[in-house]
Amino acid sequence: MPPASDEVTIESISPYGVARSTVSEKPLSAEDIRKVDAYFRASLYLCLGMLYLKKNPLLKNPLSKEDLKARLLGHWGSDAGQAFTWIHFNRLIKKYDLDVLFVSGPGHGAPAVLSQAYLEGTYSEVYPDMTEDEEGMRRFFKQFSFPGGVGSHATPETPGSIHEGGELGYSISHAFGTVFDNPNLISLTMVGDGEAETGPLATSWHSTKFLNPITDGAVLPVLHLNGYKINNPTILARISHKELENLFLGYGWTPYFVEGSDLESMHQAMASTLEHCVLEIRKYQKQARDSGKAFRPRWPMIVLRSPKGWTAPRKVDGKLLEGFWRAHQIPIPDVFTNADHLKVLENWMRSYKPEEVFDKSGGLIPELKELPPTGTSRMSANPVGNGGLLRKPLDMPDFRKYALEKIEPGVSNLGTMTNMAKFLRDIVGKNMHNFRVFGPDETESNKLGEIYKAGKKVWLGEYFEEDEDGGNLAYEGRVMEMLSEHTCEGWMEGYILSGRHGLLNSYEPFIHIIDSMVNQHCKWIEKCNEVEWRVKISSLNILLTATVWRQDHNGFTHQDPGFLDVIANKSPEVVRIYLPPDGNCLLSVTDHCLRSTNYVNVIVADKQDHLQFLSMEDAIAHCTKGLGIWDCFSNDQGFDPDLVMASCGDVPTLESLAATALLRELLPELKIRFVNVVDLFKLISEVDHPHGLSDREYTSIFTADRPVIFNFHSYPFLIHRLTYKRPGSLNLHVRGYKEKGNIDTPLELAIRNQTDRYSLAMDAIDRIPTLHNKGAGVREKLMNMQIAAKAEAYENGIDPIFIRDWRWPFPQEKKGTLQTLVGK
Amino acid sequence: MPPASDEVTIESISPYGVARSTVSEKPLSAEDIRKVDAYFRASLYLCLGMLYLKKNPLLKNPLSKEDLKARLLGHWGSDAGQAFTWIHFNRLIKKYDLDVLFVSGPGHGAPAVLSQAYLEGTYSEVYPDMTEDEEGMRRFFKQFSFPGGVGSHATPETPGSIHEGGELGYSISHAFGTVFDNPNLISLTMVGDGEAETGPLATSWHSTKFLNPITDGAVLPVLHLNGYKINNPTILARISHKELENLFLGYGWTPYFVEGSDLESMHQAMASTLEHCVLEIRKYQKQARDSGKAFRPRWPMIVLRSPKGWTAPRKVDGKLLEGFWRAHQIPIPDVFTNADHLKVLENWMRSYKPEEVFDKSGGLIPELKELPPTGTSRMSANPVGNGGLLRKPLDMPDFRKYALEKIEPGVSNLGTMTNMAKFLRDIVGKNMHNFRVFGPDETESNKLGEIYKAGKKVWLGEYFEEDEDGGNLAYEGRVMEMLSEHTCEGWMEGYILSGRHGLLNSYEPFIHIIDSMVNQHCKWIEKCNEVEWRVKISSLNILLTATVWRQDHNGFTHQDPGFLDVIANKSPEVVRIYLPPDGNCLLSVTDHCLRSTNYVNVIVADKQDHLQFLSMEDAIAHCTKGLGIWDCFSNDQGFDPDLVMASCGDVPTLESLAATALLRELLPELKIRFVNVVDLFKLISEVDHPHGLSDREYTSIFTADRPVIFNFHSYPFLIHRLTYKRPGSLNLHVRGYKEKGNIDTPLELAIRNQTDRYSLAMDAIDRIPTLHNKGAGVREKLMNMQIAAKAEAYENGIDPIFIRDWRWPFPQEKKGTLQTLVGK
Repeated sequence: MPPASDEVTIESISPYGVARSTVSEKPLSAEDIRKVDAYFRASLYLCLGMLYLKKNPLLKNPLSKEDLKARLLGHWGSDAGQAFTWIHFNRLIKKYDLDVLFVSGPGHGAPAVLSQAYLEGTYSEVYPDMTEDEEGMRRFFKQFSFPGGVGSHATPETPGSIHEGGELGYSISHAFGTVFDNPNLISLTMVGDGEAETGPLATSWHSTKFLNPITDGAVLPVLHLNGYKINNPTILARISHKELENLFLGYGWTPYFVEGSDLESMHQAMASTLEHCVLEIRKYQKQARDSGKAFRPRWPMIVLRSPKGWTAPRKVDGKLLEGFWRAHQIPIPDVFTNADHLKVLENWMRSYKPEEVFDKSGGLIPELKELPPTGTSRMSANPVGNGGLLRKPLDMPDFRKYALEKIEPGVSNLGTMTNMAKFLRDIVGKNMHNFRVFGPDETESNKLGEIYKAGKKVWLGEYFEEDEDGGNLAYEGRVMEMLSEHTCEGWMEGYILSGRHGLLNSYEPFIHIIDSMVNQHCKWIEKCNEVEWRVKISSLNILLTATVWRQDHNGFTHQDPGFLDVIANKSPEVVRIYLPPDGNCLLSVTDHCLRSTNYVNVIVADKQDHLQFLSMEDAIAHCTKGLGIWDCFSNDQGFDPDLVMASCGDVPTLESLAATALLRELLPELKIRFVNVVDLFKLISEVDHPHGLSDREYTSIFTADRPVIFNFHSYPFLIHRLTYKRPGSLNLHVRGYKEKGNIDTPLELAIRNQTDRYSLAMDAIDRIPTLHNKGAGVREKLMNMQIAAKAEAYENGIDPIFIRDWRWPFPQEKKGTLQTLVGK
Repeated sequence: MPPASDEVTIESISPYGVARSTVSEKPLSAEDIRKVDAYFRASLYLCLGMLYLKKNPLLKNPLSKEDLKARLLGHWGSDAGQAFTWIHFNRLIKKYDLDVLFVSGPGHGAPAVLSQAYLEGTYSEVYPDMTEDEEGMRRFFKQFSFPGGVGSHATPETPGSIHEGGELGYSISHAFGTVFDNPNLISLTMVGDGEAETGPLATSWHSTKFLNPITDGAVLPVLHLNGYKINNPTILARISHKELENLFLGYGWTPYFVEGSDLESMHQAMASTLEHCVLEIRKYQKQARDSGKAFRPRWPMIVLRSPKGWTAPRKVDGKLLEGFWRAHQIPIPDVFTNADHLKVLENWMRSYKPEEVFDKSGGLIPELKELPPTGTSRMSANPVGNGGLLRKPLDMPDFRKYALEKIEPGVSNLGTMTNMAKFLRDIVGKNMHNFRVFGPDETESNKLGEIYKAGKKVWLGEYFEEDEDGGNLAYEGRVMEMLSEHTCEGWMEGYILSGRHGLLNSYEPFIHIIDSMVNQHCKWIEKCNEVEWRVKISSLNILLTATVWRQDHNGFTHQDPGFLDVIANKSPEVVRIYLPPDGNCLLSVTDHCLRSTNYVNVIVADKQDHLQFLSMEDAIAHCTKGLGIWDCFSNDQGFDPDLVMASCGDVPTLESLAATALLRELLPELKIRFVNVVDLFKLISEVDHPHGLSDREYTSIFTADRPVIFNFHSYPFLIHRLTYKRPGSLNLHVRGYKEKGNIDTPLELAIRNQTDRYSLAMDAIDRIPTLHNKGAGVREKLMNMQIAAKAEAYENGIDPIFIRDWRWPFPQEKKGTLQTLVGK
């Protein structure tokens, strides 16, 4: 062995043998072991039943091919380890009257979780046709991974589950989300050793630096060293024992090991270890709560090393099954074509002695029925697992109070985000136990620092003296900042799934980092809408700022508004996108989002100072309609425009407006209608999205035959895909961001994308056929203005003052009243 | 202090004071220190110059506001630590003749890297106008974060850089990518402590389990405990020394600490520590190479704890600057409005004594010019940093040799992916040192296991006896599998950026996990296309399989084909999307992608057995054209169809074809043209993408006035956004995936999305006005067939045999020759 590696022997990291464990008490009597083992067998029997059977659920008859589902689907690999952990925790819930949620990281082992819900009676309660008898068990088996049934992960149909585990990596961050502000909750979290290799999981162990032992509950992770992924060994199962221990000590946990395959000794080891951990958690909590002094304990965690597919035959036909990757999905797949293997399966199923643990009618025998806790103490029935039950609406201050006052439309220049921060500050202040703001180290940079006045940043790391100098750190806080979008998003998902409220703020370009997480959350709530017993939860609110148009010094890597495309692909039932053009609209939209349920709301608003357009009253009307004609910038008197200038997004609106002003100055006879869109899905047909407009409504705003110059915040194609079916869609000319890497001032960036005032104005001229000759001179003038402005920017590294300080130059046609032709 | 925490004192983790280091030799003479410190000062002077100056570069005159750039942009925080590390490594490159690449994780400290490139002369070599004199220095300063200049990260314009660091988290995986199969290379990798909080970075430390000390080089990470992110302390700087040490021991590294702020002692500590690490790396390499036995050493890594913004004033006006988050970007931002602060800045800049380190003309003084290595030994000029220089095209076997033979179009049913695996196997076999296959534990599941015959899976973790039973693990292998899409992608990016070739295979739904990484890579190569000295690198090839239409038992979480939308937003110069309909097309497309350069190629092909359509000859013609009419399934004789049935993707093509057959059976007089699209960007206009068709070409295939029923693999909107400008776009009816969660058989899933044969046929009937009355009976019949088939699937959990085993029922019109009207 090379000197640089520590003394590893294969034996020291083998999952086989008599239990080896850090804690070695023996809390179980022989009778206890007999019962818990029987319960374990009942669970595993159910797991196999789900994978294989559509008939003959109790194996009252010899197993035949006709009993099998025609297509065998599902996962066996982690079932035993997960069921084992769940069952041993049941004892402690009863003994110590604990409030516990089970989070199944290796969601692929859903049979483990489903079997517990069935054994505890919860399944039959929420699905009355899945009775606790032979016919109910048959249905329960058949519906698994079967059309119209439930999937092979801990899907929304699973009682007690808030975490599907279809995509891996988020069990720990979800679990932490559930225990924040839930001081009595323990989230018992199985982490797969496959999952543990993902980036999001690897960093989420650091969540302890953000957990307050007084006001928050505890997460008890059980890292399941199952040994294998689909076809590969796992890293953590193949490093030395010492390295593994160091790793978790380094992450700030105290690892307790439970390793082996011998059932009797493993039962004792798991029972004693879990109990030790529960007592340790309580000890730390008591210490902090009694003293009133928060600190960061070395929280306990467990490493459970057991064979993959534990309790399956070790080998079939000389090929390894148990303890090998072949146990990952259907352990013996060829039971239709290989009679011997069908027999192996039957013997294996019978080895769990179903006739002993279930009575003739198919019910669990009474002595086992008594083992788990009852009511909402059952992990399968914890209300946290159906967070909507616990959700209370936010106590919201009236957002109108935070209005930017005395707005001169297109003239007032104010901090949209800094103002909104006051509203958020007071929401935090009024909801100190069920609302948190999340963000990857950008809350201050995003001009939301005002929030710290109501709730600082949670920090359980070490403190330095210098933290007094504006550090805004606190043991108890309401803002969660870690430079991991994954962890922030995971925390927030866990927090809202367990019945609370949250808002994530992020730089726009890097929100793509969590595309996949948000996708998965959309799918979760989309499905929840169909599960009758699921109560609605708060919406997932994402505020994107530091947007593409104001990224000067960060350049090309920081320019990506494409998250909206990812969101727009999700079910219209669950996604909403808002691009408020100014401060009062941002307030109105945010208020709406924070009150809503079961959506993913995305708000895009830049953090810099911006022109303001609407009084609060007008903003409310505008946001309620979602889009509208802005009369005060239009000169078509609401009737017959030559041209429609439309915008969506704050910076694009400014440029559109400046283009409109240029056109009106240079071509005063032109009748221009100015339209702004705040709710993106208004553009789509009512058939395709609940917010969509009818074609009649759409054309009343955009016309069916006049050129529309639409300046859009994001990639222009998104507007086309939303409107391609609309009347007049061929007259719609969209400008937006296109990929090209340069260091630009904002003006230069806009010019490159043809989203600047000059380009838009020229674009408009080109689209009005009647203007062609008359327009030529004006076009030339615009181009000269553009060239001159760009040259100045290029020379000085900053946009000309007449660009930066541009204001709407006309007196307001209808000061303070904005009306549109629809809605209202 | 609570008992659960270890003995932490603030002092023990403070970045201030005399150096504290694990290695405590003193290899530098007083003269060495004087010189290296002068060089360090020169670097830092340049960094500040970049941030502030557009004139007066040598401060020959008193600093005035007119010397400053009008807009101050850039990052100071990590500059000193990065420059410090670079400079001390120069000594070792010369002493030991090392081949070293510098990877700048905190890319936000680009001034550090740029200053080194300038001091080493590389900058002036690649940008001849940035001369090593006063005027050159002025230009060098001014262009930084300035329009038309370079960004504040280590962008593609930076000599020696393959890693921009704009989005954080990938420095370690990139670095490992560069050293695989580069046995002499050391990649010296600065990891920011902000970056270290990201998930991708946190798991990438495990890369050592995939590095072979004989055939690969080494990564020497320097974790820069800079202490602060934008506005927050970093986690790793605020945990105990012991935890930090444990963490890296647990990750499998040997951490060496260098901590402090006192310059003289820090110079000695860094010099001795880096040297110790280099010697340790060489020792392990020698041991493995001499013995021929690979093993996993505890590779050395360094923890450099120094104050953020090191060498800046500690306080300005009583507010902390150095050692605090205020030093992150422009350290003193108000120099325009505060004359005192302008003076503070001037004094600070003069404290580096520019007049001592630069001569009057602005050149570095000779004794400092001699310090760094020369030629390609300079880290700023290492050819690995411009990997195209080193790239050799793959030695490719003729893909025609792997053709699926004797194809009966629409009748042969074969394994598309299993066949392609043979081609990949032989590419691996012929390119054992510059081609690797990457994937998150899915290569076998994706039916690519054949590759293992040429190159197994690299594994430097522990081995068990059972690995002999089909484990396919090896110390030396060509397949890289870790359950971290981020790490796999990062490795591959590093591998191709340093001049080699790669292919990533992944389940389609989870590729969204790396949306953001692929975005950033697209941006990198898009920019590289404009940087003259950058030589083209191999394309980034992504093979997506286990696709949306064949995800039965995994259900809703595994259904997401939206990666294509993310890719389609990127610059047309760099992205390509292929959806080969069958095995021979997959071979042709893969061959093309592996030969290409500077693209991101995405290939979507399902892993199951599929109907085959084209002989190799026809497949080559089809893929070359990118789309075409399939005459053998059409009965319009290439002239005047009533209807165009179009498809893109393998499963959609099968269903389209089956719909076509139904229509031809039920309505034999209907003239149907069958079109297939393999290169998605053919659909877009030639104006918008280099692959795009002209409108004339487009209408010659799709017609301008006939209904087109287009069955698409992904979300249908993508086709609309690509074609909204096309003639006849209103006749284009696209079917594709829409979000809805259920457990379905493939048929049920297709029916729900109206992408099944029956729905498509009914759709077609509805779109042909002349058919309306005649079509009604046929439509009814189709609906009955659909209902019956669905009912059978629902009952049995598997699609009816006549669906699963469907074959094209007509004799081939023109057997074996497929022609189209364009191209050829």
